[in-house]
Amino acid sequence: MMTRNEAADFLRGADHILILSHQYPDGDTLGSATALCRGLQKMGKHAMIRCSDSIVPKYQYLFSGVKEEEFTPESIVAVDIADLQLIGEPNRSLYGDKIDLCIDHHPSNSDYAKRTCLDAKSAATCEIIFDLLNLLGVEIDSVIADSLYTGITTDTGCFKYINVTPATYRIAADLVEKGADGHRINRVMFDTKSRARIGMERCVMDTIRYFYDNRVAVIKITNEMIKSTGATEGDIEGLASIPRAIEGVMIGVTIREKSDGGYKISLRAQPPQNASEICAVFGGGGHAGAAGCTFNTSMEEAESQMLAEIGKHL
Amino acid sequence: MMTRNEAADFLRGADHILILSHQYPDGDTLGSATALCRGLQKMGKHAMIRCSDSIVPKYQYLFSGVKEEEFTPESIVAVDIADLQLIGEPNRSLYGDKIDLCIDHHPSNSDYAKRTCLDAKSAATCEIIFDLLNLLGVEIDSVIADSLYTGITTDTGCFKYINVTPATYRIAADLVEKGADGHRINRVMFDTKSRARIGMERCVMDTIRYFYDNRVAVIKITNEMIKSTGATEGDIEGLASIPRAIEGVMIGVTIREKSDGGYKISLRAQPPQNASEICAVFGGGGHAGAAGCTFNTSMEEAESQMLAEIGKHL
Repeated sequence: MMTRNEAADFLRGADHILILSHQYPDGDTLGSATALCRGLQKMGKHAMIRCSDSIVPKYQYLFSGVKEEEFTPESIVAVDIADLQLIGEPNRSLYGDKIDLCIDHHPSNSDYAKRTCLDAKSAATCEIIFDLLNLLGVEIDSVIADSLYTGITTDTGCFKYINVTPATYRIAADLVEKGADGHRINRVMFDTKSRARIGMERCVMDTIRYFYDNRVAVIKITNEMIKSTGATEGDIEGLASIPRAIEGVMIGVTIREKSDGGYKISLRAQPPQNASEICAVFGGGGHAGAAGCTFNTSMEEAESQMLAEIGKHL
Repeated sequence: MMTRNEAADFLRGADHILILSHQYPDGDTLGSATALCRGLQKMGKHAMIRCSDSIVPKYQYLFSGVKEEEFTPESIVAVDIADLQLIGEPNRSLYGDKIDLCIDHHPSNSDYAKRTCLDAKSAATCEIIFDLLNLLGVEIDSVIADSLYTGITTDTGCFKYINVTPATYRIAADLVEKGADGHRINRVMFDTKSRARIGMERCVMDTIRYFYDNRVAVIKITNEMIKSTGATEGDIEGLASIPRAIEGVMIGVTIREKSDGGYKISLRAQPPQNASEICAVFGGGGHAGAAGCTFNTSMEEAESQMLAEIGKHL
């Protein structure tokens, strides 16, 4: 484990840096990657970003300030990637055993990199990147500020999740002062829905079922729904917050059919329930409030195993 | 107009203080009143709060730290009340011409009080109260912090509106440090849906139809839906924002069956479209962004008349 100062020292000495984002990229991994990439480029270094999955349109503005480069990497940095598995293919096969530095905030981080700068108290990896850029003396311009703000607001559900700390608000204040357009970013991230998204919400609402005296709500996402609505990854993101939002629900369960078979379960829990502990039983991980795991069984089997485990914790 | 320092001086010299909140009280007027009342009580002063309307259950926690008092007021302070009209009855008749100090952030404030401490750059009146309590040397405890945080988050739509400034985030940081439970407050204010509300959303999503190259989306709310889901008025509030939030939609139309027959249409428009102009054609009114009108026809007739009128404006 590395301190922020040590991670900044490492970056200061590095060049031709490849930055990896995790698969199914979200605002925090892309905000971290683009802010860091732009910051390193401002220092005169060569830096580029690679992600195993394509970037959904709503995140493409994050790349507007990043110079596209192509080179043979000398140093590889993973941002917001808790485990090798989450790098996705092809990047995992290409770079999985060569990660020089991992910058992350997931308590479940599996320490797979040569160096790890982990701060599980940070609400978003972007908070750590903010500190690193300051340590590196990079002036945070409005494009970097937009990237960092995006990671912070998406990983906190617009300052709503339990992971928000005073530091989260203070960094947001600084970013807005540097020119981050929080109003526009939050509207795009939280208040604009595609027709396909509306279609997906309608489909998953039809699947809601309640268990354990309505303390647990379960929704399902199938490949058939995704196909019929034309939903992209971006349209599916955040659907897992629907069951959690229901009055009286302590644990929200989202069962998603994977395109390559099997099921991914996302848990959202209210304290004192711990989503990470429950998912760990099935080899998964995450945070107390939000965690996930996968099943290579039928949907019914995945659901019943998960519900049985949840029952032990309620 | 008074500075914060002058307003603090006035409060320091006052006692037996009556604090007024505005009618249809929201998080900011109640957060301001409860934080100020508790602060003054902590200074050893007598203070009480009056509001012309009753307090809905979700705001009642704000009063938990306030000592209930009854006395003949010597000083009257209005918080977050832009105009005499908004005090509501009976308080307007009782106290309207005797307001010693108004503390407010509305640019439209009509300067009706003997003294006015107005800061239109503050996202919430609670931001001003925060500064006043600090000037008065009141230690902000977790109960006061909860009140102030509530006003700030509700008046900014959870840090989403364009009124948010760096100061908003910095005050939120301080309040969370003093013990405000932002996570719980935001969950109650923004992320808790009753099962009936979820049922209503599911029903109205099944009715979404698109017109004019998807620039107009229409949803319907029937008495049958309300009956079958057991929805209250609170569960129906805000459903009209669903069609507006759809990507590419310029005008969102919500047609609601009235319990006494006929239909109410709520329009939500993105600039340059003007909801008020369109509704005015049918004898209704409102703002450019949100307006309404009623029809004493069949639902089909109401819809087709409205769509025909909208077509002239697109």
